[in-house]
Amino acid sequence: RIIDVVEQTEKQNSYQPLAGKQVLVTAGPTIEAVDVVRYFTNHSSGKMGFAIAKVACDLGANVTLVSGPVELETPPNIERVDVTTAEDMYDAVMSRFNDQDIVVSAAAVADYKPTNQYDRKMKKQSGDLTLELTRTRDILQALGKAKSTQYLVGFAAETDDAIKNGRDKMARKNLDAIVVNDISQDEQGFKTDTNAVEVLTNKGEHQSIPLQSKEKVAQQLWSTLTKEM
Amino acid sequence: RIIDVVEQTEKQNSYQPLAGKQVLVTAGPTIEAVDVVRYFTNHSSGKMGFAIAKVACDLGANVTLVSGPVELETPPNIERVDVTTAEDMYDAVMSRFNDQDIVVSAAAVADYKPTNQYDRKMKKQSGDLTLELTRTRDILQALGKAKSTQYLVGFAAETDDAIKNGRDKMARKNLDAIVVNDISQDEQGFKTDTNAVEVLTNKGEHQSIPLQSKEKVAQQLWSTLTKEM
Repeated sequence: RIIDVVEQTEKQNSYQPLAGKQVLVTAGPTIEAVDVVRYFTNHSSGKMGFAIAKVACDLGANVTLVSGPVELETPPNIERVDVTTAEDMYDAVMSRFNDQDIVVSAAAVADYKPTNQYDRKMKKQSGDLTLELTRTRDILQALGKAKSTQYLVGFAAETDDAIKNGRDKMARKNLDAIVVNDISQDEQGFKTDTNAVEVLTNKGEHQSIPLQSKEKVAQQLWSTLTKEM
Repeated sequence: RIIDVVEQTEKQNSYQPLAGKQVLVTAGPTIEAVDVVRYFTNHSSGKMGFAIAKVACDLGANVTLVSGPVELETPPNIERVDVTTAEDMYDAVMSRFNDQDIVVSAAAVADYKPTNQYDRKMKKQSGDLTLELTRTRDILQALGKAKSTQYLVGFAAETDDAIKNGRDKMARKNLDAIVVNDISQDEQGFKTDTNAVEVLTNKGEHQSIPLQSKEKVAQQLWSTLTKEM
């Protein structure tokens, strides 16, 4: 189509700091089934991760987007891999990690899953219910351990001591950078079209990206990261 | 707008068995927070409930649509009330019940909510987690107890003994009709655009509505219900 040719031409003429780079972005929530109807999950529209993937592609990268269940269109020229559970996402990311130059983990992966999952519908019981939950495998920690030359970026959604918790998480998980989302603030975070974040790098850089559209936040994020790499 | 005038004219010229009726439809899931990030919910796109609301409006009813969080446009000429939790939905429905002629409860209301909910983000713990859940108030049961002249229609999403479980639920909750969804079958139920259901009424009617679009299912459902009322 003509539009593809125009986009391709624009792309060739524009600033391409990620040209030739393999970038993997995770986005969205994961869903951990209790039974065929009920599930446990995290708030996440996937919009921030999709914006990061789109902008990486605009900047010349070959982008793989590993996404949990979201209601979003795949941006053009991006390979999308759909997953449901934290375990699916672990497998999808780990199996592709060796081929990547940069990984941005923007997904809100469930950190617990029901210990027992039912294929059928659990019948209601009278009174209360105790649900046993088991920790899921920590994808970011596994990536931090497995990494060789990859530049690894995590997200931290925090309500308290956001910067300190973010910095601790970056060190603990062996990340190169972390994007801190203070989700106690309105208009930034999960379902909104806007966001405001703090970007911390393990070289000591600290950049505040003010409230704006998630695509603009993604542009500033990549601008900061590409200078640091 | 011209399109509204055309629609209005079509409506005046078409079959209007629900003209002058107040119809309330519930749709979508409810979300029960564990904390600011994590939550417990049910699979539900809201598509079946929205189709039932739209068709009721096409048939002349004044429609109120009480919806949990879904990614759907409100059909024209319908009053939409957005809710999040089972408790919100209980309040929204019960406060409007006396004004209704017909209530169709198509929402997948969470039947359990975390006993303790946290305003902030719960920090991960090492190892497993036991989550205490409390039963939410049963909206359909409350409607069945409160009803005077209202025609009350419930849904049953079942994986086993669908018809028997549906009939039991209709009796137990004092419903006039129940729509049974066998969710163990592919292509019917939660996220799909198609559905196939069995409609049972307390007068003993049993109508099978075969697999087709949710809007077509809604048309056949109203066709069956309006004959029975």
